[in-house]
Amino acid sequence: MPLHRFVQRMAVWCFIAIVLFGADAKQPADLVITHAYVVTMDGKKEIFEDGVVVVKDGRIAAVGPANIAARYRADKTIDAAGDIVMPGMINTHTHASMTVFRGLGDDVPDRLQRFIFPLEHKLVDREIVYWGGLYGMVEMIQGGVTTIADMYYFEDEVARAARKIGMRGILGETVLNAPEPDAKEPYGGIAYAEKFIRDFRGDLLVTPAFAPHAPYTVDAEHLRIVQKKADELDVPILMHVAEMPDEVASIRKEFNKTPIEYLDGLGLLTKRMVAAHCIFASDSDIALLKARDVGVAHNMVSNIKSAKGVAPAWKMFQDGVRVGLGTDGPMSGNTLDIIGQLGYVAKVQKLANHDRNIMHAVEVVEMATMGGARALHMEDRIGSLEVGKLADLIVLDSQSTTMTPFYDVYSTLVYAASAHDVKTTIIQGRVVMENRKITTVNVDEVREHMRSLSRKISSVVAAGIQ
Amino acid sequence: MPLHRFVQRMAVWCFIAIVLFGADAKQPADLVITHAYVVTMDGKKEIFEDGVVVVKDGRIAAVGPANIAARYRADKTIDAAGDIVMPGMINTHTHASMTVFRGLGDDVPDRLQRFIFPLEHKLVDREIVYWGGLYGMVEMIQGGVTTIADMYYFEDEVARAARKIGMRGILGETVLNAPEPDAKEPYGGIAYAEKFIRDFRGDLLVTPAFAPHAPYTVDAEHLRIVQKKADELDVPILMHVAEMPDEVASIRKEFNKTPIEYLDGLGLLTKRMVAAHCIFASDSDIALLKARDVGVAHNMVSNIKSAKGVAPAWKMFQDGVRVGLGTDGPMSGNTLDIIGQLGYVAKVQKLANHDRNIMHAVEVVEMATMGGARALHMEDRIGSLEVGKLADLIVLDSQSTTMTPFYDVYSTLVYAASAHDVKTTIIQGRVVMENRKITTVNVDEVREHMRSLSRKISSVVAAGIQ
Repeated sequence: MPLHRFVQRMAVWCFIAIVLFGADAKQPADLVITHAYVVTMDGKKEIFEDGVVVVKDGRIAAVGPANIAARYRADKTIDAAGDIVMPGMINTHTHASMTVFRGLGDDVPDRLQRFIFPLEHKLVDREIVYWGGLYGMVEMIQGGVTTIADMYYFEDEVARAARKIGMRGILGETVLNAPEPDAKEPYGGIAYAEKFIRDFRGDLLVTPAFAPHAPYTVDAEHLRIVQKKADELDVPILMHVAEMPDEVASIRKEFNKTPIEYLDGLGLLTKRMVAAHCIFASDSDIALLKARDVGVAHNMVSNIKSAKGVAPAWKMFQDGVRVGLGTDGPMSGNTLDIIGQLGYVAKVQKLANHDRNIMHAVEVVEMATMGGARALHMEDRIGSLEVGKLADLIVLDSQSTTMTPFYDVYSTLVYAASAHDVKTTIIQGRVVMENRKITTVNVDEVREHMRSLSRKISSVVAAGIQ
Repeated sequence: MPLHRFVQRMAVWCFIAIVLFGADAKQPADLVITHAYVVTMDGKKEIFEDGVVVVKDGRIAAVGPANIAARYRADKTIDAAGDIVMPGMINTHTHASMTVFRGLGDDVPDRLQRFIFPLEHKLVDREIVYWGGLYGMVEMIQGGVTTIADMYYFEDEVARAARKIGMRGILGETVLNAPEPDAKEPYGGIAYAEKFIRDFRGDLLVTPAFAPHAPYTVDAEHLRIVQKKADELDVPILMHVAEMPDEVASIRKEFNKTPIEYLDGLGLLTKRMVAAHCIFASDSDIALLKARDVGVAHNMVSNIKSAKGVAPAWKMFQDGVRVGLGTDGPMSGNTLDIIGQLGYVAKVQKLANHDRNIMHAVEVVEMATMGGARALHMEDRIGSLEVGKLADLIVLDSQSTTMTPFYDVYSTLVYAASAHDVKTTIIQGRVVMENRKITTVNVDEVREHMRSLSRKISSVVAAGIQ
């Protein structure tokens, strides 16, 4: 057959195939979100004003303008009707289970040693950790948080709660130089952590970790042990760093170093480390954090409520340190959503740096998403809406009163939105909240457990906690 | 008839009367709220955990424990089912109509002169002021604000919006040394204000007022004229005071005084004055504000977003100055609810004063309610739930995730509640929002007007505003 006849016939057959089977040529997907104002937070900060996000097998299969929707055949479609779709918020430092204590002992001095530690020692058990953690995750999913870094006791219970509700997390078991609620001997947390890590490693959502409490509550010897075991088990280390004036003073006195220099000397500053707070980080400390690839959790609300100061997070961000946002626990910052932190970070960084023209809204949203991913060393998997990343995303209500009018999406998110504007939360492609209804747990039941625990706690506190 | 027989008969008749007509012995009421966690904010900070509030003729007829409900026969009963009932929030400084510009020109320097004034001059008209003001009041009622102090142009349109939606307000017409959107000649605002004041005086909800913009935009001669006319017409004066570093510097240079001393020299510091901001108030300025009985509006969010500084509001509060909270306009603070300010005030005052043990939650709630009433010189009528006061009150959702658990109501309100937790708002006994549905305007319609105005504004801004 002459070539031109062959080409002619092929063209005819192709045409017929497209007409007959065109519909079936669509690619299968688990979920397609259409008519969304898509804020990707990718490297170019691309926005699709009438955009589409496609999810398949827990990952983002496509992101783009309206016309790409036609290429997919989805099991489920969400018409966002102009709502904002963006990466989920990343809470890089919290103690979710402490929701049971929220609002206890506010506005008093020296809380940690005189109130929180004795309270925890007396009360914290598996039940409190599980239900408090689950309740904290209800609040975070309602507020659009899709990944957390959590530190507490009985952290395996937090992990069970995360599996139950469908939350992604790096969950760190506390290590401390004193008896703990879950370990009678000082540093018993190390063995507890090892078992926890072996039990949960390879989990789809939970990354188990060590959480040495702080440089002033874990001695050098045990910090080295934790680092060695973390290397062996290949897990992260979560820690409070450069948070307390006393910590800074005592390490200066004993070692003539900053807490960050001290930890570096012990070999703790590595890519495993997520250092919470870093309020008292000097310029050279910041250079160290950058050089060692350490992640930093900036907890603005908690830090200023305790009058400790404002961490140099803007400078860290400018200098390329891996810095994300955190809420701290609900006895410190009281709420666990990250959207509520955005305005504080933008405004208090401006105040502390005496310049209204810094810490722009877009930078704050970056800190809350890609910044958080970098702080947790997970930027290859989460933090932005890009093909191949895990499908952790949220939908925000464009009908919200404060989000109208809508001139600049970053300004709207940082200065006007609230946690209550989150309608839908998706983690690893699973719709864990849709139209403000959590799908994975019965919220009324969780709240009732919380109420019952809080009545018990009230009576203990009334009788005196010391 | 012997006396004892008479007494006997009377007793029998009384018994019969009580049995037969007991129900009718109940006092009539317009509204009774039962099973409320009542936070009175009265002088004793009395709380009724299972409490009742009775409203009659727009005023509070009774407040007390559960058993007082039986004394009233109400047209309407709200079973609060454990929800918090408290005085409405008072927003002592705002520019509600600027909702139309919310989110425009954030994060840029020198906004007022280079952006906001030209934008207003080009765009502001009766339509923008009415619909922007109405939309701002929708937001405020949704957030539990029941009284506002507002400054803008075409303030009679703000007054019409307030009447329409049922908001209480001191509404000040702007006076400025330049052509205004509503007055071609410099200081044309004075005549505009006089007419506005005459038109609206005696209104049940609206108190018309003068609003000379600031010491640096109204000269001494015209400030004296405004004061004289305010005295004649017996109306308040709303003004920006000690807000700008340039203002402080120029008044220091020209008069060797602080802005507050300068205004005192002109006779402006009186009980008519509500001075917004007072960021740069010295200790002797604070003493002057106290001695002259001036009201102060503390706008924390706006002040720190612009990196201007933290007003010494905690010191003012301690020293007995009449200090309340304000949001400023939505181009400055972006949201208009006061509940969102509470956490900022508590935390940033602690930060600025380097003491976590000051600015307690209960003091912040006081600032937002009775403090606001004092700042507006209306403490005899609003600010607390006490018999005889105007019935301005709100109901907050006790089922809210962040408001559980509930150990201390003030801590919960300041550190955990949000504007979205307000379910019901009552102004002058009128239920203007019930179960999150505004009863006095069609919110969808108001939002559509806002959207249409914002599209027009977008196109003007895109074409260049200078």
